[in-house]
Amino acid sequence: MNILKLKTPYLIFLGSEENKLNAKTGAGLVEWRPELCKAQFNLTESGLDLGLPRMSIAQAKEAGIKSLIIGTASIGGGLQDEWMDALVEAAQAGIDIVAGLHNPLNGNAALKAASEKTSSSLIDVRTPPENLPVGTGIKRTGKRILMAGTDCVSGKKFTALSMERDMKKRGLNADFRASGQTGIMIAGSGIPIDAVVSDFIAGAAEQLSPDNADDHWDVIEGQGSIFHPGYAAVSMGLLIGSQPDAFVVCHHASRSHMDGWESYILPTIEQVIERTTDIGSLTNPNIKCVGISVNTSGMSEQQREDYCADVSKKLGLPCIDPHVHGTDKIIDTLVA
Amino acid sequence: MNILKLKTPYLIFLGSEENKLNAKTGAGLVEWRPELCKAQFNLTESGLDLGLPRMSIAQAKEAGIKSLIIGTASIGGGLQDEWMDALVEAAQAGIDIVAGLHNPLNGNAALKAASEKTSSSLIDVRTPPENLPVGTGIKRTGKRILMAGTDCVSGKKFTALSMERDMKKRGLNADFRASGQTGIMIAGSGIPIDAVVSDFIAGAAEQLSPDNADDHWDVIEGQGSIFHPGYAAVSMGLLIGSQPDAFVVCHHASRSHMDGWESYILPTIEQVIERTTDIGSLTNPNIKCVGISVNTSGMSEQQREDYCADVSKKLGLPCIDPHVHGTDKIIDTLVA
Repeated sequence: MNILKLKTPYLIFLGSEENKLNAKTGAGLVEWRPELCKAQFNLTESGLDLGLPRMSIAQAKEAGIKSLIIGTASIGGGLQDEWMDALVEAAQAGIDIVAGLHNPLNGNAALKAASEKTSSSLIDVRTPPENLPVGTGIKRTGKRILMAGTDCVSGKKFTALSMERDMKKRGLNADFRASGQTGIMIAGSGIPIDAVVSDFIAGAAEQLSPDNADDHWDVIEGQGSIFHPGYAAVSMGLLIGSQPDAFVVCHHASRSHMDGWESYILPTIEQVIERTTDIGSLTNPNIKCVGISVNTSGMSEQQREDYCADVSKKLGLPCIDPHVHGTDKIIDTLVA
Repeated sequence: MNILKLKTPYLIFLGSEENKLNAKTGAGLVEWRPELCKAQFNLTESGLDLGLPRMSIAQAKEAGIKSLIIGTASIGGGLQDEWMDALVEAAQAGIDIVAGLHNPLNGNAALKAASEKTSSSLIDVRTPPENLPVGTGIKRTGKRILMAGTDCVSGKKFTALSMERDMKKRGLNADFRASGQTGIMIAGSGIPIDAVVSDFIAGAAEQLSPDNADDHWDVIEGQGSIFHPGYAAVSMGLLIGSQPDAFVVCHHASRSHMDGWESYILPTIEQVIERTTDIGSLTNPNIKCVGISVNTSGMSEQQREDYCADVSKKLGLPCIDPHVHGTDKIIDTLVA
């Protein structure tokens, strides 16, 4: 299995961030993987509190922390000068540095020099692993469910993480499989599928959900939309390689057009079901849609319940807002 | 337009090759672009004759040759030690070196050093240009026809080159657009689409066939097959980004299964037409199939004519073997 892997536990690095909105990665890690987040690091006393113990780099080393995760996105998305002393100290202490920034960690000379003297790795979660294979299309053991979308940013990662949590609560054997950078940080492993060279995207998806126990579910984070004028090929490669038994369509209820591609009308949920089934049946003839996950933010409770009931009735499938309802109704259909 | 561009005219480099089958690239260049092939270079007197004047590197420089194209594939697909003196001499003379080998030219220290002292560029046609954009899906001027396939290696490049030649013969305004390494060498420009990072594949295809005159046809080399378990995402990105008005389905008549993926039955021509139309209509609602191009090698003349007549009758579209019939019947449908 050729995927990125992060060492645990984590120190969440927040720099001098004071606003939680800029620290979605750090907050997401604390929400979804609290057991792996041992401490947080702030440059300032007034810095954002994620509810974790505050530690210096030396204390983190002493506490057995293995990875420092940059959990905040600065303006411009790059490394900040004021971060460097602490990051270099961590690398010198043999702690891995993990980031999903626009400029790679390996491009920073001081960090690179420090890491080369120790066992510290600089891990850019936007950089796919090397030597990914071409997709084989060969059937794998275990079961897979993939998040499909009517668009980008339609709740695929949130739905997949919610399903993993709700499935585990019932005692089901399930693991979230991350295909994007934030998901990889949360999962501690994965492949940034959209950064993979096109020839190898189906092969990368095959690596992401390898053979597993017959009762095991890979809950795979989707990417883009099969109807997206920029990213459809990413969605297709992930679909073909994942060979999912089931999929969920994720949708933002208030959206009428592709986000950022305003001349493109959003496909209907029905269109996404039909196209995903058609294409997915190449590598898994039994593929089927098991539910709809909708982001209903901005709706009143009554509007939300009416909307979900309408979609559910029309399609004969459970329709939920995972933020409000959880994903149990979809899991009921999945295991039925 | 962000694509690879080769300087002309060419010296075709054949090393000590004696077998034309190993020099498909060189032979293809001489077949499709004789006006650009000024000379050939052989290390041995008994070397393969492509019908071009033989020149030394010094003579090539004197004759105004701008690019040396490695036109033969060695065993293993890499640079050969015995080639290096001549290649270094060419780089020292300021001649570009162009190759589609498995190991990049830039990885050879002697070549790199020589090229850095002159204006010579080392061009690996397997390496895409940098800074490709994400696909916009915005409608472009001019017209486009794309080769689709039931499989890889089904005659897409040959059909596209044949169509370009036959269209030009009639005075139509047409250009072959190369999406693979051999095609790029023949066209002198293009993008190796399968080597592009997935996020940018539709954007790369948009760069490959930019805005053009209203009467102009881009004849775009296809890649893979929309039904391929390894490469479907490549075919999809190229399709979405090309926004073709028309497409041709290319098929190898004797093949029953995907070449190298023997557990996958070949899709039917009808399935490829339907799926290509469905997906392509996202960026061009007027997309339609205008013909079928079949490789009938191994059939008798009678078998071939019966086969093409059957397909044509069944689908209501022209069906030709471009090696035998040329592509005029498809062009008739295209311009109708």
